Amino acid sequence: MAKINAHYNKLGAGYLFPEVARRTRLFSAANPDATIYKLGIGNTTMPLTPAVIHGLKKGVENLADLKTYTGYGDEQGNSRLRKAIVDMYSKEHGVSIEEDEVFVSDGAKPDSANISSIFSADAIIALQDPAYPVYVDSNVIAGRTGSANGVTYDGIVYMPCTERNGFFPDIPTRKADLIYLCSPNNPTGAVATKEQLKAFIEFAIKNRAVIIFDAAYWSYIKDPKLPRSIYEVEGAKECAIEINSFSKSSGFTGVRLGWSIVPKALVAEDAAPGKITSLWNRRQTTMFNGASNIAQEGGIAALSDTGLAENQKIIDYYMENARIIHKCLVEKGFEVFGGVNAPYLWVKTKDSMKSWDFFDKMLKEAHVVITPGSGFGPSGEGYFRVSAFGIRENVLNAVQSIRDNLK
Amino acid sequence: MAKINAHYNKLGAGYLFPEVARRTRLFSAANPDATIYKLGIGNTTMPLTPAVIHGLKKGVENLADLKTYTGYGDEQGNSRLRKAIVDMYSKEHGVSIEEDEVFVSDGAKPDSANISSIFSADAIIALQDPAYPVYVDSNVIAGRTGSANGVTYDGIVYMPCTERNGFFPDIPTRKADLIYLCSPNNPTGAVATKEQLKAFIEFAIKNRAVIIFDAAYWSYIKDPKLPRSIYEVEGAKECAIEINSFSKSSGFTGVRLGWSIVPKALVAEDAAPGKITSLWNRRQTTMFNGASNIAQEGGIAALSDTGLAENQKIIDYYMENARIIHKCLVEKGFEVFGGVNAPYLWVKTKDSMKSWDFFDKMLKEAHVVITPGSGFGPSGEGYFRVSAFGIRENVLNAVQSIRDNLK
Repeated sequence: MAKINAHYNKLGAGYLFPEVARRTRLFSAANPDATIYKLGIGNTTMPLTPAVIHGLKKGVENLADLKTYTGYGDEQGNSRLRKAIVDMYSKEHGVSIEEDEVFVSDGAKPDSANISSIFSADAIIALQDPAYPVYVDSNVIAGRTGSANGVTYDGIVYMPCTERNGFFPDIPTRKADLIYLCSPNNPTGAVATKEQLKAFIEFAIKNRAVIIFDAAYWSYIKDPKLPRSIYEVEGAKECAIEINSFSKSSGFTGVRLGWSIVPKALVAEDAAPGKITSLWNRRQTTMFNGASNIAQEGGIAALSDTGLAENQKIIDYYMENARIIHKCLVEKGFEVFGGVNAPYLWVKTKDSMKSWDFFDKMLKEAHVVITPGSGFGPSGEGYFRVSAFGIRENVLNAVQSIRDNLK
Repeated sequence: MAKINAHYNKLGAGYLFPEVARRTRLFSAANPDATIYKLGIGNTTMPLTPAVIHGLKKGVENLADLKTYTGYGDEQGNSRLRKAIVDMYSKEHGVSIEEDEVFVSDGAKPDSANISSIFSADAIIALQDPAYPVYVDSNVIAGRTGSANGVTYDGIVYMPCTERNGFFPDIPTRKADLIYLCSPNNPTGAVATKEQLKAFIEFAIKNRAVIIFDAAYWSYIKDPKLPRSIYEVEGAKECAIEINSFSKSSGFTGVRLGWSIVPKALVAEDAAPGKITSLWNRRQTTMFNGASNIAQEGGIAALSDTGLAENQKIIDYYMENARIIHKCLVEKGFEVFGGVNAPYLWVKTKDSMKSWDFFDKMLKEAHVVITPGSGFGPSGEGYFRVSAFGIRENVLNAVQSIRDNLK
């Protein structure tokens, strides 16, 4: 008799964003004349650039011709794309990666969710609090946690990110085997310094822990002193996997393309150098069949000099949105964090209002959808996240509505 | 201290196809003047049809324009594509499926590998022997098996597919919770009759087992009496998940697009109707981010009347390859199975020669790459698989070389 994976029963009723969508739908239904301004989900809105479109079209046209048609590609990715990623690490970040350490994927979300499967079922997970919900939920499903306990799960090491520590956590004070770090952080917009990463790398090496470093927002870092890749910091290759994406750097949220770096120097308690790379290789060749060959041609184009320059303009555009939103919220008397080297602003509610209560207030008064901070973890309570992704006109309208209508 | 998922250590050294590729490379290196003819891997070779190319281009062009750009889509798939799949089930197979039972994916391989994760870790797996290696390997990795024991794993129920039973297995005589069936079968090319599926459905309902039905090759079924979808057989919705793909019907092996049907009527020991559908929905929304929006536009085009008609011609082309190969092998005195309602021929070696020995002989004498049957399971020993995917000229050359050179 088949039984279900009962760990699913521990999960909260829904993923954060469906609940945001549900409340928004209810409000819209009750207020059919209200125009809703969405500053909620971190979804790109600007069209792809000419160089990328050209690459994608070439990808399609290749498939129309017997001479250039390709079927299954390498699960690890097109070798031209892997090489382009290696070259970018070298040129833009001064980091030397080998091609067989690069695993192209269909995005950072699946990689973030799947990466823990190559580690033991009893691994203790440490997370930034607040954090992207996928890190938690994927480990709940895998049985690495106890029961839900309010908004937390037993067995997870939550590392609070608060005003006190500049929203980047201190190293764990308890045992932790897999440590998820996201910088620039979703949702707080905080970026780790080299010194902060160094402390985690030292902790990981000392304790043979593995850091899962999510760098999906690295293109938004303007400050040249801040590291984009964790491998800019010494020792990281011995203890860190880096996950990245074309979603936010090139508008590929719907196209689906990302990559992970699993260095051959990486070790674990029972894994000599090379072993973890070979495990991820086995995982991907067995359970994945490669990213779309069309998307990969687009990725190659996005990493060309023209592609990078064109996409920088779009990043600048979103960051101008961030500046506009920042200015309005400060004027309205909010304490605002992030949004300078990241596309997210992390904002404190006033009078210690709960996140979901403020979500409802913002929706009701200003018709603006934001994301409640508590949905990202207990330390997010009393905060909300504002996304800088959006069309300028919508951002300006949202900001005007906040100015005029938010009490 | 992080430890690895030690179940990986149970896996054989490599996936079957990398070993085929390795031996082929070695032979090529030692015989640089030999032309190698590949009838090995089931990879499509014909270019995409005009209707599909048009759809894919539209998918790309949508992303070039602010008005039609889309970012994240629903993880479950574009609603137009889900509707097209529902309509196809109804029109082509007389099967009524609801849209929220359709989950679009990046292909049948990932879905086959991931589907067991919504079931309990102690589920007993039953498999056709021989079978597509992903069913076995994904469950080894998930810890649902004991150690490797020669070519089998302890704890798996192997269901032999032999000449005696027409290469479709009898129902299990032992307890089995998750039963993988693939029809048309990879590698044997055997297709289950309605009566054969009915026996499995009755077994599953009686024992509250779940059938994972892989229908990725259904487009190759010519005989109208043979079921393409398991839902053509009464009772299947209570006990079966169906996995399917655009890879072999529309040449999408590199484009990456598939779907699974998880019916709301499906039950398990601890799952009332609707529960398993909601679990797969949670799995996909948490751990997957949707198939590429470009690929999905291609899929919609592939399911249009024009797309279906164009792709039928390509299927006919591959099946003419199958006929040509079949004729040659019979003339050479081989016993040949499959290849009539499936793109794979399943061939007995002569004089009980072992599969890998015959692989080496075929490569050495005729310079033709086939796939050793033993790579698909112990009952595959003494057989080899020949794939009908390929360009006609290559197939004709391969066949001529077998005629002239195989001793």
